[in-house]
Amino acid sequence: LQSGRMRRLKPMLASLSPAEIALFLESIPRAKREVVWALVPDEDHGETLLHVNDEVRAELIDSLDRETLLAATEGMPIDDLADLVEDLPEQVTREMLRSMDVQNRERLKVVMSYAPDSAGGLMNNDTITVRPDVSLDVVSRYLKQRASLPDDTDALFVVSRYGRYLGMLPLAKLVTLDPERDVSEVMNTDIDALAVDMPAAQVAKRFQDLDLISAPVVDPEGGLVGRITIDDVVDVIRDEAEHSIMSLAGLDEEEDVFAPIGRSARRRAIWLGTNLATAFLASEVVGLFSDALSKIVALAVLMPIVASMGGIGGSQTLTLMIRGLSLGQIGFANARALLVKELAVALINGILWGVVVGGIAFVWFHQLGLAVIMAAALVINHLNAAVTGVAIPLAMKKMGIDPALAGSVVLTTFTDVIGFASFLGLGTLFLLH
Amino acid sequence: LQSGRMRRLKPMLASLSPAEIALFLESIPRAKREVVWALVPDEDHGETLLHVNDEVRAELIDSLDRETLLAATEGMPIDDLADLVEDLPEQVTREMLRSMDVQNRERLKVVMSYAPDSAGGLMNNDTITVRPDVSLDVVSRYLKQRASLPDDTDALFVVSRYGRYLGMLPLAKLVTLDPERDVSEVMNTDIDALAVDMPAAQVAKRFQDLDLISAPVVDPEGGLVGRITIDDVVDVIRDEAEHSIMSLAGLDEEEDVFAPIGRSARRRAIWLGTNLATAFLASEVVGLFSDALSKIVALAVLMPIVASMGGIGGSQTLTLMIRGLSLGQIGFANARALLVKELAVALINGILWGVVVGGIAFVWFHQLGLAVIMAAALVINHLNAAVTGVAIPLAMKKMGIDPALAGSVVLTTFTDVIGFASFLGLGTLFLLH
Repeated sequence: LQSGRMRRLKPMLASLSPAEIALFLESIPRAKREVVWALVPDEDHGETLLHVNDEVRAELIDSLDRETLLAATEGMPIDDLADLVEDLPEQVTREMLRSMDVQNRERLKVVMSYAPDSAGGLMNNDTITVRPDVSLDVVSRYLKQRASLPDDTDALFVVSRYGRYLGMLPLAKLVTLDPERDVSEVMNTDIDALAVDMPAAQVAKRFQDLDLISAPVVDPEGGLVGRITIDDVVDVIRDEAEHSIMSLAGLDEEEDVFAPIGRSARRRAIWLGTNLATAFLASEVVGLFSDALSKIVALAVLMPIVASMGGIGGSQTLTLMIRGLSLGQIGFANARALLVKELAVALINGILWGVVVGGIAFVWFHQLGLAVIMAAALVINHLNAAVTGVAIPLAMKKMGIDPALAGSVVLTTFTDVIGFASFLGLGTLFLLH
Repeated sequence: LQSGRMRRLKPMLASLSPAEIALFLESIPRAKREVVWALVPDEDHGETLLHVNDEVRAELIDSLDRETLLAATEGMPIDDLADLVEDLPEQVTREMLRSMDVQNRERLKVVMSYAPDSAGGLMNNDTITVRPDVSLDVVSRYLKQRASLPDDTDALFVVSRYGRYLGMLPLAKLVTLDPERDVSEVMNTDIDALAVDMPAAQVAKRFQDLDLISAPVVDPEGGLVGRITIDDVVDVIRDEAEHSIMSLAGLDEEEDVFAPIGRSARRRAIWLGTNLATAFLASEVVGLFSDALSKIVALAVLMPIVASMGGIGGSQTLTLMIRGLSLGQIGFANARALLVKELAVALINGILWGVVVGGIAFVWFHQLGLAVIMAAALVINHLNAAVTGVAIPLAMKKMGIDPALAGSVVLTTFTDVIGFASFLGLGTLFLLH
């Protein structure tokens, strides 16, 4: 970056939101990142760190000195701070805790005591609570005294004398209803509180299903411990969806696009090595038929088609399953019905493309037997793809393995091996002698 | 479904939220769907229709009579109604419009006049507006008179006498600040209004970047036309992420898991046919080397490995690109830096796995030449995968083609063709004579 461009960069960064700065930092190579990071306004440091992925965050934190880091954490909401603390150097965390007031320190400790991917880890515990037996007028006067509310407060929480969650009082009700009425008469009781140990994925589903903006979080005794607002849930929803797409290629959604070459290469090597094992298995199978291959070269020419068509068909079923499982659309209860449907679809497409491929093979090599064998192998591999496409993700789910991560490797192993074996096996049986 | 289970089904459905009913309907085969749909409480019909995917929605609408459909639309928010109207039979729409009051009919017409995937299509136009020059006390009295607010109202909108958007007045400020102060003194002016024709994807990005809960929508003259709340944006965010993962397998995210077999088979046939064309291209290339293949059978046995490893490496780069492009993390500006990095990673992994694969090939076939050629082909195909993995999605983006949909087909064509050609070509050159 030349000095002219750097002069223009500073006002540009000042005009961006922290999320936009985060995206910009992720999109530039590592070498230039530190220069740009130094130009980010101090007051945006904290929020920008929240928005970048884990890997870039660690890199940026490394480049800030203790003072700046400490300043960055000041005034951050408790739930955001809890996310950040895990990545901060221990000394900074200690100093930060020391500089906080007692109430906030206790709050932070509570949030940090829950798993980050649970309702407790997502929540903010700056709730404003009121009693059920006071009038709306009393509530209004109390709020005027407070003079401000935490960010994104759209409702107050109604709790018993012992802190038990009873209901929500939306501000919209407070400002429209008769001030003489009691809180207990008008509060919403239709939204069930979220258990503090509810997994984040389930929290996200609940928010989506019920179109929630905010929801109370309670401990096992029903005591109110915090609230979750939808802006925190949006990140969970997006991360989940990204996790699937990245996992299918053996990548991690928190990976830096411009990670150091050595680190990237090492990570990807694991995935390539896994796939290599399956590719060799397929080659072993091909090797069993060397006799047929050396005598009928058309088998070698056509065999990739059988494996590839099975792989494509299988990946369609697999993708449908992975999405259905993550949405809760598909489970063991309806797997049989789905298998029947996928088998029927595979049979139709197997026959259709079997005829087409067989026809082309006949025109190409003028051997009717070869054409028939090719068509038969295609049908077999499509049916195989449907069965494995349905069965693999279900089996993995049962074993606690993420189907998005390992599903495609196992599937391709099946479609390659069965594809090669059926085609070359039929060829050996019917064409060799 | 036996009658005993049906008796238990009705109370179960009554206890579910419309979104949960929608998911349940999507997860049961078509034959049983109509029976269950008939048991869904009337008051949940409208919202359930909103939550199912397009294909199931059309099916469910078909099975309801005119009266029930009309009843289902009653009391729905305008933005939801606008989404539904497009799928309703024309006669129902006409009757529905006739039964609405003038104000709501006009509102619906306004929302429907915008593209569904724009800010105008997402918005709700039931905004509550106030003038800047009145006191908070006046606003409070006005709200008490109204006695209720539209769902998810967390802020009022401040407009000029001519309807120009000026700022937002969060209810949180209204209830905490001094009632004598004027609206103009306390309103938030830091959130830019969204243009009514802003694409939905951009709206979603803005909400995520700024952690918005609701935002104003304005026409080109700056006049307030409605508001968007985050619950509508959440659907956009999820749909976008799902679109990528489904597209990669040639599927549509609005597809019914239990779509009729014929329809599913037809749709998937298109994808299989496209892939077949590329598979044949690869076979043609293999066919060019039949001479070498018939003489050295090890080439036929090992060639799938070269193609498959290239395909895996390429799909990693491609997935990184597809996600980066959709997040706005990657563009033409940083593509060169990324290409350099991907090439370096590919070179390292090409050499690493080339040596491994070459070693295994040597142990297997006892031919040093074969082992060296195998390693060289693997390096070549990895480099090819890096280049095409970066270039294909960029080229497609420039041509206006969705890289998630067509990217993997084109990529595999390259990695197959170059993989086979380099391995068999080197084999012909160095091993045949």
